[in-house]
Amino acid sequence: MQVKEAAAAARQAAYALAQLTHEQRIAALQGMAQALKAHAQVIFAANREDMQSAQAENLTAPLMRRLKFDERKLQDVITGLFSLSGLPDPLGQTTLARELTPGLNLYRVSCPIGVIGVVFESRPDALVQIASLCVKSGNAVLLKGGREALRTNRALMAALTEGTKGILPDGWGALLETREDVTDMLSQDQSIDLIIPRGSNAFVRYIMDHTHIPVMGHADGICHTYVDASAEVDMAVRVVVDAKTQALAVCNATETLLVHRDIAPAFLPVCASALKEKGVELRGDDETRQIMDCLPATDADWATEYLDAILSIKIVGSVEEAIRHINRYGSHHTDAIIASDETAQRRFLAGIDSAGVYVNCSTRFADGYRYGFGAEVGISTGKLHARGPVGLEGLCTYKYHLLGSGQTVEDTVTGKIQYTHRDLD
Amino acid sequence: MQVKEAAAAARQAAYALAQLTHEQRIAALQGMAQALKAHAQVIFAANREDMQSAQAENLTAPLMRRLKFDERKLQDVITGLFSLSGLPDPLGQTTLARELTPGLNLYRVSCPIGVIGVVFESRPDALVQIASLCVKSGNAVLLKGGREALRTNRALMAALTEGTKGILPDGWGALLETREDVTDMLSQDQSIDLIIPRGSNAFVRYIMDHTHIPVMGHADGICHTYVDASAEVDMAVRVVVDAKTQALAVCNATETLLVHRDIAPAFLPVCASALKEKGVELRGDDETRQIMDCLPATDADWATEYLDAILSIKIVGSVEEAIRHINRYGSHHTDAIIASDETAQRRFLAGIDSAGVYVNCSTRFADGYRYGFGAEVGISTGKLHARGPVGLEGLCTYKYHLLGSGQTVEDTVTGKIQYTHRDLD
Repeated sequence: MQVKEAAAAARQAAYALAQLTHEQRIAALQGMAQALKAHAQVIFAANREDMQSAQAENLTAPLMRRLKFDERKLQDVITGLFSLSGLPDPLGQTTLARELTPGLNLYRVSCPIGVIGVVFESRPDALVQIASLCVKSGNAVLLKGGREALRTNRALMAALTEGTKGILPDGWGALLETREDVTDMLSQDQSIDLIIPRGSNAFVRYIMDHTHIPVMGHADGICHTYVDASAEVDMAVRVVVDAKTQALAVCNATETLLVHRDIAPAFLPVCASALKEKGVELRGDDETRQIMDCLPATDADWATEYLDAILSIKIVGSVEEAIRHINRYGSHHTDAIIASDETAQRRFLAGIDSAGVYVNCSTRFADGYRYGFGAEVGISTGKLHARGPVGLEGLCTYKYHLLGSGQTVEDTVTGKIQYTHRDLD
Repeated sequence: MQVKEAAAAARQAAYALAQLTHEQRIAALQGMAQALKAHAQVIFAANREDMQSAQAENLTAPLMRRLKFDERKLQDVITGLFSLSGLPDPLGQTTLARELTPGLNLYRVSCPIGVIGVVFESRPDALVQIASLCVKSGNAVLLKGGREALRTNRALMAALTEGTKGILPDGWGALLETREDVTDMLSQDQSIDLIIPRGSNAFVRYIMDHTHIPVMGHADGICHTYVDASAEVDMAVRVVVDAKTQALAVCNATETLLVHRDIAPAFLPVCASALKEKGVELRGDDETRQIMDCLPATDADWATEYLDAILSIKIVGSVEEAIRHINRYGSHHTDAIIASDETAQRRFLAGIDSAGVYVNCSTRFADGYRYGFGAEVGISTGKLHARGPVGLEGLCTYKYHLLGSGQTVEDTVTGKIQYTHRDLD
């Protein structure tokens, strides 16, 4: 398949998708669910082949688990499709209604972005989630999954295509198969409105540096937890252990622990022993190492996303110093303070320049499902459009409808008509 | 001045600006107004020098009018500062409040974007408007105005700096002076969050192609007016004349007129004579030229922003054909339909992929002031973040505050706590 043609077809499909009713889009999601059930055995067979190849290539156990697509995963994606069907229509929502001058009314109405290119990791269930989020929000989509899941993805895409035939316009979704396809996609700025890359830092940076199409996503996830002088030690230990160890190779895991000087002697040894029990390697600055035994942290540690059982630790003298460190070395993803003092909490909330700023809870909560968004297409550390976990709303934009009865600007200049700027109900 | 240092200072200032209260930001706007009054004679003197140089360089009369900064312009910008002061605070607005699990509450709160770089045209009053919009929304700003207004801009910036001393953090605003400064700014992606370029197509495209910083703006303004078969001829003529001639060198002027075949014989001759009276050169497709006498339009005309007294005309067979033409050749800025038939209106509103889609009114209404936004920093034809005229809201982003009492993700996995996802009042 030629990427250029697929992108051009998606562009045309997007214009048709934007005009479908919510009922038609719901019918498409339900058609997807039915076709996935009907194609189950073909999909499982394709997945078994992918799993065998992966085994032959010695994929790690966690990757193998993500690659697997069985009866349970099928049930999960079908449940997801029905719950997505039930969410309110994100399109056609009026977020501003204003009379500009009598008989001339302005409305800001939500609408699809258009054509989205998504590059995602090895989980084949992600294909169904992303495709269905795009359809619910009226967007056409180009999908590129992990190489090791290609057979499964082909089978899934065949099912989705069949299940939506006659409901969605041809070209609404296409599967890209190779790295070259991704490269080709980056130059289709005439047809593609937004690229959402998920994957390694290096990969996301490569995408950002090689396209003029807007990119939404995150390259790094250098999250911090700061334990203030006013923290409850027990809570701080529990939250830090969760933030570091509940999952390791995830963007919302805490990579650096900042500890207020005053609480360090009481907190650090307890926390260190809890973390070591979970097999975490600790790397501390000089002051940390005067309190407890650990490897030395260098400046490079502050700027590193380990994605592993490693935690860097630094002592700070104030919440302001913690804020400065985080804004300088962090990746503007998610950062937490553990504190009882409300002034410290407030300063942290106002001062941290990140998509998520948390008080007394684990950075691991940064996730579209946990936020109640149904699902997410990605997490954005950019500041424009959507920030943090991106769900249906982030896949929509708006346009202004201005409805008149022959008004001209000249008549406002001559004073024949006057601006009222009156908000409408 | 070194741009890198100014950008880094703006970055630090942005962190402080984000923490100012609305009262403090209002005080800054009022301090600006006072200082402008106090510096009036110095500013006028600087402007007279700019005007003399411009005259020596034979600037056109319209450009000279835009360059002029006199008592009347001063009154306008001061009125603007006070009306901006009175607008509601765009920051700290909670747009989502949700209990994730008992005691763990998620809030989406509006906050400044951070550091904005704005490149604007010769009007010196734009400097005050842009700087004040940025301050009201808590953003630091780097400003680059027209070369011919440099002395005026320096005097204005000196006044704004003095008027906000002790209220705003140092580095909140800086004036860039040369083209090289703009080039230097494009590489400061560590410090600058957003660039808003205003100016010629070629210039905006150059900016978009030479920076990894997000750019918000518009390169082209190829706006259309489509006259449907169901249009009232009188209204259509009045609106088309306004859309083409009310101002010429503006992005929201209509550049191509599409006319339904059935109304062309009744409409075109009347409209053509009204336009010719205003000195507009008409270029028509073959079918147009069978109805009336005009120059031939080529394919290049459909993709040209004249910014001049020229209008291209094409006959179409349906609203769908008009939509296809506009989505293909337009610049997704603002497009209008003149029609009585509600089905045609509805199809046009849904089918046109532009920031503004108008019914029975002039494309010239696409403007932040006319929309009641107070003012605008620019008009965006991109689909992400802000679309159309960008006012205060478009200068803000949001962050998620998650306030807990020790919650961990592990406890949700073991079932010790459950997600409720209950919207809060």
